[in-house]
Amino acid sequence: MTSLSDPATLTPVEARALFRAGTDRPTEGWARGYAQANLIAVPQDWADDVLLFCARNQKACPVLDVSAPGDPASRLAPGADLRTDLPRYRVWHNGVLTGEITDASGLWRSDMVAFAIGCTYTFEEPLLAAGVPLRNVAQGRGVAMYVTDRPCEPAGRLHGPLVVTMRPIPADRVDDAVRITSAMPSMHGTPVHVGDPAELGIADLARPDFGDAVDLEPGDVPVFWACGVTPQAAVMASRPPFAITHAPGYMFLTDQLETGVTWT
Amino acid sequence: MTSLSDPATLTPVEARALFRAGTDRPTEGWARGYAQANLIAVPQDWADDVLLFCARNQKACPVLDVSAPGDPASRLAPGADLRTDLPRYRVWHNGVLTGEITDASGLWRSDMVAFAIGCTYTFEEPLLAAGVPLRNVAQGRGVAMYVTDRPCEPAGRLHGPLVVTMRPIPADRVDDAVRITSAMPSMHGTPVHVGDPAELGIADLARPDFGDAVDLEPGDVPVFWACGVTPQAAVMASRPPFAITHAPGYMFLTDQLETGVTWT
Repeated sequence: MTSLSDPATLTPVEARALFRAGTDRPTEGWARGYAQANLIAVPQDWADDVLLFCARNQKACPVLDVSAPGDPASRLAPGADLRTDLPRYRVWHNGVLTGEITDASGLWRSDMVAFAIGCTYTFEEPLLAAGVPLRNVAQGRGVAMYVTDRPCEPAGRLHGPLVVTMRPIPADRVDDAVRITSAMPSMHGTPVHVGDPAELGIADLARPDFGDAVDLEPGDVPVFWACGVTPQAAVMASRPPFAITHAPGYMFLTDQLETGVTWT
Repeated sequence: MTSLSDPATLTPVEARALFRAGTDRPTEGWARGYAQANLIAVPQDWADDVLLFCARNQKACPVLDVSAPGDPASRLAPGADLRTDLPRYRVWHNGVLTGEITDASGLWRSDMVAFAIGCTYTFEEPLLAAGVPLRNVAQGRGVAMYVTDRPCEPAGRLHGPLVVTMRPIPADRVDDAVRITSAMPSMHGTPVHVGDPAELGIADLARPDFGDAVDLEPGDVPVFWACGVTPQAAVMASRPPFAITHAPGYMFLTDQLETGVTWT
């Protein structure tokens, strides 16, 4: 493995080349300044349900790109191959996690449709630039993710609960965090809740469903943003025959600048 | 017809009741403070193409709601009936405009899927509140809309050009207009172009493709936002067998506050 003294300064192209060659690392803090994305790929006969689910649950599932059936390319990163260029994938059969792999080439069906969905890692750089401390970064951890008790709007055969990330934010910086993230709606935008985990049905912040537990410091408030792992919770709840997703925290690094994911 | 001394102060419920009873008026300035929406309804076998077209062209087609097949309700306005509660509709057969009607009940097929799409009328109120003059309002006109030479991203069987609205803005207020509209991405957000109509392939501002010509005052700059009439241009270009849309300028008035179109 190539030396990785500072993955933050890699370009997305360099990072994807490492992942394609087998590097298996979570991407928080990698290629800072560029947009990161969640991935869910399903056979074509489920793609319309996924797209409608995303349209009805845009806070959790802001769609950045939808691939053509069978085409592993993405307009977010010319030259990238979605089957190989993420550091780690999850494989799902009938809603059950059946494996984690670093190369999905062998399992990528010829009719797979891939969805790239915005990721809150993308707004960590502007938060840090504004002096809003990120405890997960200081503690050397990913973010904590939780399955909530809030149902998403169902769509076709898909249903499931909202998943959120949590970041501890000093109480006097919560307003800045809200303001900064409000400018990035395609990366989940404003928080869905500030303050009380119980309001989201989260019993214990120390036991996240995905990612790492992150410690609050005195004066911190837990701030919850909608999370692009929500489609994976829908896969678990709705049991489509087959799906490939990113592994939580192991994202698709795009070539788009963090503020520059633009639409036609 | 009920007296309409100031439609700006009507609630959306009151306005929709007037439209349901036959009032046939453009909605610019009506029920100020509430979100207005574009409408496109197609038979179910075209709905997935429309949804993908919207996902790939979100600047022009920010989806606010997708109805269940055959159900003329909208979560944006409980109690509303999409078949009757807009002031005017356009009917399309094979991409050709075949009629304008004020009640779509008789033509609404049992498998119609309706899409509500954000509208720039929604951000006129915050612009006015910030003291940004709107020439169309002062001149008693709707907005001017133009078909551009920019192609949208195709999706399935759908393709077509981007449609834009134009508002003349005093040069020293363009920055405010950009800032204010940037906060409303689901209402088309920031402009797609500022300044030169020729950059969008618009030959003559005095001859809009839809709506009213609006005069620039000395020192004004033409500012162009993506427009939710874009799906109608796609209907014209792509010729689906059947579609019902709003008539340009005759929008769906929702119960959502202008800043409050939220997502699950």
